[in-house]
Amino acid sequence: MPDSITLYTAKICPYAHRVELALAEAKADFKRFDVDLKNKPEWYAPKVNPASKVPAIAYGGPDVPPDQPSPESIKIAESLVLIEFVADLFPSANLLPTDPVLRAKARFFYDAVGNKFNSAYFNYVLKPGGSQEALFKATEDLQALLPPTGFAVGEWSIADAAWTPFIARLFVALENDLGGYTVGEGPKSLQVLLNDTRFARFQQYWKDVSARTSFTSTFDKQLIKEGLSKRFADIQRA
Amino acid sequence: MPDSITLYTAKICPYAHRVELALAEAKADFKRFDVDLKNKPEWYAPKVNPASKVPAIAYGGPDVPPDQPSPESIKIAESLVLIEFVADLFPSANLLPTDPVLRAKARFFYDAVGNKFNSAYFNYVLKPGGSQEALFKATEDLQALLPPTGFAVGEWSIADAAWTPFIARLFVALENDLGGYTVGEGPKSLQVLLNDTRFARFQQYWKDVSARTSFTSTFDKQLIKEGLSKRFADIQRA
Repeated sequence: MPDSITLYTAKICPYAHRVELALAEAKADFKRFDVDLKNKPEWYAPKVNPASKVPAIAYGGPDVPPDQPSPESIKIAESLVLIEFVADLFPSANLLPTDPVLRAKARFFYDAVGNKFNSAYFNYVLKPGGSQEALFKATEDLQALLPPTGFAVGEWSIADAAWTPFIARLFVALENDLGGYTVGEGPKSLQVLLNDTRFARFQQYWKDVSARTSFTSTFDKQLIKEGLSKRFADIQRA
Repeated sequence: MPDSITLYTAKICPYAHRVELALAEAKADFKRFDVDLKNKPEWYAPKVNPASKVPAIAYGGPDVPPDQPSPESIKIAESLVLIEFVADLFPSANLLPTDPVLRAKARFFYDAVGNKFNSAYFNYVLKPGGSQEALFKATEDLQALLPPTGFAVGEWSIADAAWTPFIARLFVALENDLGGYTVGEGPKSLQVLLNDTRFARFQQYWKDVSARTSFTSTFDKQLIKEGLSKRFADIQRA
């Protein structure tokens, strides 16, 4: 039985969402504290995460309100570290397979999410003149790592927790034409990703991950839309 | 009992060295193939690692010579994925603690090696005008994560495998004044890192990791010196 968990998170943040997904899949009991990323509480960096980022977990220690973190709890940060931590804390939830080869494939997958997909996503959406084809290519590269059916390594795993939040935010951005690309290009890109046979396996994957309770219970599309609208308001567009 | 392991590696490469350290600590039986990074075999990318980088492992499959990799073996790449894989394959070698909190600390540590130390090292050594103080600060940041004695999380772990190869190469570069910094600055920086009390804990740590058989049996200083000399020959210097 793990000690008490307090998650410091923010709905807008895809990295924090990874940990929310892992905790939901583990059916973990935890307290949450939503950090206002534009106005972080003074105590957050000194008492929880010196890097001043979400997500972070305070683990164990006395039973305190999340906004009064105890020095006796252990503080852990970085989304990939945290999803591995949740998998280790709840072994019976099978958030990672036990087979070493499948574990390696899951880690190779989340590494590829970070190195390939996320950079292509940020480039396309956040920067004026970002490349649609680079985004498509990265999506294809990740798609190529998927087995014929199921999730990144068969059963749902933390590899899926690593990717899902970024796909979800990409789709909200495209659907609402939010980003640095040419006006009107977002919905067109979305249609290709959702309908073109080039992405058939990815489309089935997205149906599968987004249908899970872990996703539906942690993703608030309207809130993400509003958050991205604010975040992207200043991007220069063609 | 794990299946057969073939490691594709290169002595010069710090990322490959991570995996050599983990395999040595696990006392693993494995075949090795040294890839000439300046003249990679034609079969390497299509048959072992599409990214054409070392390290990579071919795991299982029929007993074949390393230069004739079988399509039946499983190919795994990325140094951090591989050191976790070795830890998973040889649980009795305790390359990672079993306690979830210590495992998280090990992973946070190797993440900090990648995000803080390595970037400062590459900046200082590979780029003209790189910052000595940024290197010192990064070393201090990593030092601050170390417990009072022992290794990154107490007992030796894959977190130490992740850092050691970079310290070793940094020291060879500095000792031989190889890099983009001002001529003569390398040995001076080395003296600070090795003798200044600011780095006392780091100095003890380096003594401890570099004394291990896993290091002495996998590190060839002369070869690294020659490799770095060639690699750094073209850097413009002040």
